[in-house]
Amino acid sequence: MTAAFQRRLHQLREHEQELLKLKNRPLKPGSGVFFRYQNPVLTANHIPLHWRYDLNPDTNPYLMERLGVNAVLNPGAIILDDKINLIVRVEGVDRKSFFAVAESENGIDSFRFHDYPVDIASFDIDETNIYDMRLTQHEDGWIYGLFCTEKRDSAANPSDQVSAIAQCGILRTRDLRKWERLPDLITPSQQQRNVVLHPEFVNGRYGLYTRPQDSFISTGRGGGIGWALTDSMEKAEVKQEKIMDSRTYHTISELKNGQGPPPLKTPAGWLHLAHGVRNTAAGLRYVLYLFLTSLDQPDKIIKKPGGYFLAPEGEERVGDVSNVVFCNGWVVRENQDVFIYYASSDTRIHVATSTIEQLLDYVNHSPPDPLTFSGCVKQRNALIKNNQPFLI
Amino acid sequence: MTAAFQRRLHQLREHEQELLKLKNRPLKPGSGVFFRYQNPVLTANHIPLHWRYDLNPDTNPYLMERLGVNAVLNPGAIILDDKINLIVRVEGVDRKSFFAVAESENGIDSFRFHDYPVDIASFDIDETNIYDMRLTQHEDGWIYGLFCTEKRDSAANPSDQVSAIAQCGILRTRDLRKWERLPDLITPSQQQRNVVLHPEFVNGRYGLYTRPQDSFISTGRGGGIGWALTDSMEKAEVKQEKIMDSRTYHTISELKNGQGPPPLKTPAGWLHLAHGVRNTAAGLRYVLYLFLTSLDQPDKIIKKPGGYFLAPEGEERVGDVSNVVFCNGWVVRENQDVFIYYASSDTRIHVATSTIEQLLDYVNHSPPDPLTFSGCVKQRNALIKNNQPFLI
Repeated sequence: MTAAFQRRLHQLREHEQELLKLKNRPLKPGSGVFFRYQNPVLTANHIPLHWRYDLNPDTNPYLMERLGVNAVLNPGAIILDDKINLIVRVEGVDRKSFFAVAESENGIDSFRFHDYPVDIASFDIDETNIYDMRLTQHEDGWIYGLFCTEKRDSAANPSDQVSAIAQCGILRTRDLRKWERLPDLITPSQQQRNVVLHPEFVNGRYGLYTRPQDSFISTGRGGGIGWALTDSMEKAEVKQEKIMDSRTYHTISELKNGQGPPPLKTPAGWLHLAHGVRNTAAGLRYVLYLFLTSLDQPDKIIKKPGGYFLAPEGEERVGDVSNVVFCNGWVVRENQDVFIYYASSDTRIHVATSTIEQLLDYVNHSPPDPLTFSGCVKQRNALIKNNQPFLI
Repeated sequence: MTAAFQRRLHQLREHEQELLKLKNRPLKPGSGVFFRYQNPVLTANHIPLHWRYDLNPDTNPYLMERLGVNAVLNPGAIILDDKINLIVRVEGVDRKSFFAVAESENGIDSFRFHDYPVDIASFDIDETNIYDMRLTQHEDGWIYGLFCTEKRDSAANPSDQVSAIAQCGILRTRDLRKWERLPDLITPSQQQRNVVLHPEFVNGRYGLYTRPQDSFISTGRGGGIGWALTDSMEKAEVKQEKIMDSRTYHTISELKNGQGPPPLKTPAGWLHLAHGVRNTAAGLRYVLYLFLTSLDQPDKIIKKPGGYFLAPEGEERVGDVSNVVFCNGWVVRENQDVFIYYASSDTRIHVATSTIEQLLDYVNHSPPDPLTFSGCVKQRNALIKNNQPFLI
């Protein structure tokens, strides 16, 4: 080992230690609904050095990054053995994604990766990319991981190297270490993304939030958050999809929307987090919104505040795919604190913290979208007028 | 001359001097393959004041910028008389580009422009824009400058003021001061961008890297880096183009790719730098990649690491056309140091430094793209496993 190699290794390890030791702090005063945090909880630089560098001085004399990581994003989340576990999407410099589990005691910093990435069997040799896993602790006793699986559209013209087919892949586990792959979900739609398993049986069946689409990027006549039932997860198949939250003109989700993580059970109903998408001159803009569905009927929306709950801000605005926030993982701690894990601009993972009580207050008492500017002005004027006695 | 004019001129000159005196430093520890630098080497603010301001107090009492410069980008590069010369694309606030030569002793800062921009004859009165020159010191004794020349598509509907025809223009010079324009390249493709002259004869003919495309922005059925031969550069014409590096599904270059600067001759082969493009929800993303071709057959790829070599990072991510890095100029110094000049987000020019030995180590020992996530996980697991003895 040369002195240069040793010096460089020392530098790299020091940088890594600094990053891993970094404490996180909420940014006060916040919106009253949630707190953002000072630092992302996971970035490409958090991926262990020995997952990226060949540390053997004989085969890597310059100690160069041999298998770079481009981004760390869109984690599923679950509490297991009192630790918060994120199953993150790790994207290599070659654009292929895979899953890796990181855990933390406090959920706001000090996430540590398991020894190896998640090694799952590929059913289909053509399967090219996997991403955006939703973890559901189901009442049947299994932890399910539903994710998006993509391959090239074999019907595409050879000169088209972009078109793909996206479907829902299914894994199950008890410990986030040993995984069993089940057959992909069969649905009546040509493509699926953002499929999420509901945590409880619904009339003895498994409930799925879906996002049917006609083609790879555009939702076509599809779109909206769908709801469907399957008798089994071992051979998951839905015959019918019903749109429970459709795209709506001039709202935050006029172009696309999709369910985020599995909903949280609260006394007032199932609390949902979803993403809404609109188009702009600079590309799509992804924001997050909340709504509440009935405890008896998880597909029936009973409360839905107007507009977004969380949108890209500051450094979150810029990244590989700018102007995006996306969330497919959140957890509730025993004290009813809620930790929301969201990625910004397809590049890094942040945490936002709130409580069940605050989130319910938000969905129950924030006014719905009046859908026209005049309705919005009426809403705002009422707010201002009611505030007059408090303007002392 | 009013006191206000004088004060303002003094201020402007002080700012200019500060900028020109700025020293540049490599950002350590880097990736082990190259170093980025603290500051861009050229920006719009580096364009001399008297190229932008009318300095006559009678005709410009407010000392306002009369001919603003919007951006400085995409330079060709060459070493001449021991100096590093960049032929940069200067874009006025009116969106038209022209070329200007700037030179520096050390190549990392202190670039100074020639007295005037490059004044080249336009053959075609409709020629609207020229950009992205590749400089090749050919073994025939000339320095060639191949660039993109554009005019409005005369077949376009009058209501379409966007469609253009892009072709390859050709200049030659001995000193970067006196330029001779040769007829544009004739090729079988409808449009051309990113055409680059190989530095040596190939079986007595001139070799060209091309990028055929069917239409102005989209490559259509074309795309990929092509290879073609011409008997003469004075009447350059290629009859056949062969794609030597095609677009590939779910890689960094699934949408488009193109040769960057002329390849560098090394004992192991011709070292190539190219750009790859993919689409995202927020527009296109341009990254740089490296590969090696055979010394005997410059169109035969013998090594190609998976993924990108350099992608937009930090402030590079944002500019006129965000999420873009582009390179059409690099040089090798006598000590085998390599200076890579790349533009970020079509706005400013940076340098990255490496060595021939490091770049060859990178292309020879970084694994190729396995094209599926399961192949990628296997690659990474092998790396992690082999690193276990070094994790002390």
